[in-house]
Amino acid sequence: MKPQPPVILLVRPQLGENIGAVARAMANFGLESLRLITPRDGWPNPAARAMAKGAEDIVAKTEIYAHLSEAVADLHLLYATSSRARALNKPVHSPRAAARTLREKSSLKRGLLFGCEASGLSNDELKHAQALIEIPCDPAFSSLNLAQAVLVMAYEWYQAEVHTPSAPRKSTPPARLAEIDYFAEVLLARLEARGFFTPEEKRPGMERNIRAFLSRLEPSRQEIATLHGILRALEGRSDSRKG
Amino acid sequence: MKPQPPVILLVRPQLGENIGAVARAMANFGLESLRLITPRDGWPNPAARAMAKGAEDIVAKTEIYAHLSEAVADLHLLYATSSRARALNKPVHSPRAAARTLREKSSLKRGLLFGCEASGLSNDELKHAQALIEIPCDPAFSSLNLAQAVLVMAYEWYQAEVHTPSAPRKSTPPARLAEIDYFAEVLLARLEARGFFTPEEKRPGMERNIRAFLSRLEPSRQEIATLHGILRALEGRSDSRKG
Repeated sequence: MKPQPPVILLVRPQLGENIGAVARAMANFGLESLRLITPRDGWPNPAARAMAKGAEDIVAKTEIYAHLSEAVADLHLLYATSSRARALNKPVHSPRAAARTLREKSSLKRGLLFGCEASGLSNDELKHAQALIEIPCDPAFSSLNLAQAVLVMAYEWYQAEVHTPSAPRKSTPPARLAEIDYFAEVLLARLEARGFFTPEEKRPGMERNIRAFLSRLEPSRQEIATLHGILRALEGRSDSRKG
Repeated sequence: MKPQPPVILLVRPQLGENIGAVARAMANFGLESLRLITPRDGWPNPAARAMAKGAEDIVAKTEIYAHLSEAVADLHLLYATSSRARALNKPVHSPRAAARTLREKSSLKRGLLFGCEASGLSNDELKHAQALIEIPCDPAFSSLNLAQAVLVMAYEWYQAEVHTPSAPRKSTPPARLAEIDYFAEVLLARLEARGFFTPEEKRPGMERNIRAFLSRLEPSRQEIATLHGILRALEGRSDSRKG
């Protein structure tokens, strides 16, 4: 059986728009189950549905609870976000570390708990959580919107799985060093022929610069071919005269 | 002098609410400078100000531009977010890798470019960027809201502070994007004059490839000067004939 991703739990959420935005953030990053504990404006909430566009599924399946203790009863592992350090004698994790742990404990039924927009989670609510997550923010402006806090956690959850991003794809195979070197030789010879290296003392430094360019470029074979083409074009007239 | 954090640039943003939410996300994670390129509803925008609560400073100092090329002219390094893989021949980074690189290159004036809510960035707009950032999302629901995309990048920027190696120093100052762009224009004009773009259908792809080279190179001002010198030398005879 495929393990279920963590459940998102919102305690006393106020604005339907925020609930809808939470649903979108969840859908963006592979989360599926949303639980609301005593949402202020009741349920269903048309504003939530409107804001969720594309994530209506999550809104339609949202579960409503009257008490937090019921909402967390079937979970094995619950982490709560908290914007303030608290003397709760619980471990405090970064979003990234928490996401990794949640990924690792895939045999457990896991939940992420978020407080209401105005006041966050009370100490009484936080006691249900095994650990806290603090999202590092600029201390000068640390009030993170509810949907933004969920987004950060959902994003980290998703990254924790895919944190080896696929290598940037080049469309064509890379040039071999010999091919790069050959182009450098041709270019240097053409510049030499045109008196570019005067005075002669400038030559070694200039040559080094040009080779440094090319190696930094890490060109594809196609690009080396284009560079040869450019060189021929720029010299076009003299070449045709020679030929 | 303390290095400035990256500038956030929004191309053709539509809703003031989103601009305000962007300002909040920036303030949460230590970003300061916002530039808008042709915002749909003009500027100032009361909805942006209302949504920005707590981040009014950023809104008040927001700079407005009529053209993207002007908005990026003083930057040295520009990364653009793109939700779709594109055949643009540019490196594609994860948000995390991009944030680390931006931190490392602290001596450069850096920017992060975001497209409009409806259509993102056009290929023509993306060409200004040296690299793309793709935010990994659930493929089943990958449309990330503008403010959410900015939030993810701002969050990663802030997290990247902790493990930043000292910036590798370049011996000469980096070229500005306007200087790189000018060299590209000169080179393309010279190639055009020499009939390089035949058949004409090849032109857009070829032009894109040449711009991709140059932006990948992240040249110094000295190197741009060298490239101009090489170009003049290769064309030497015809120039002197003209002159």
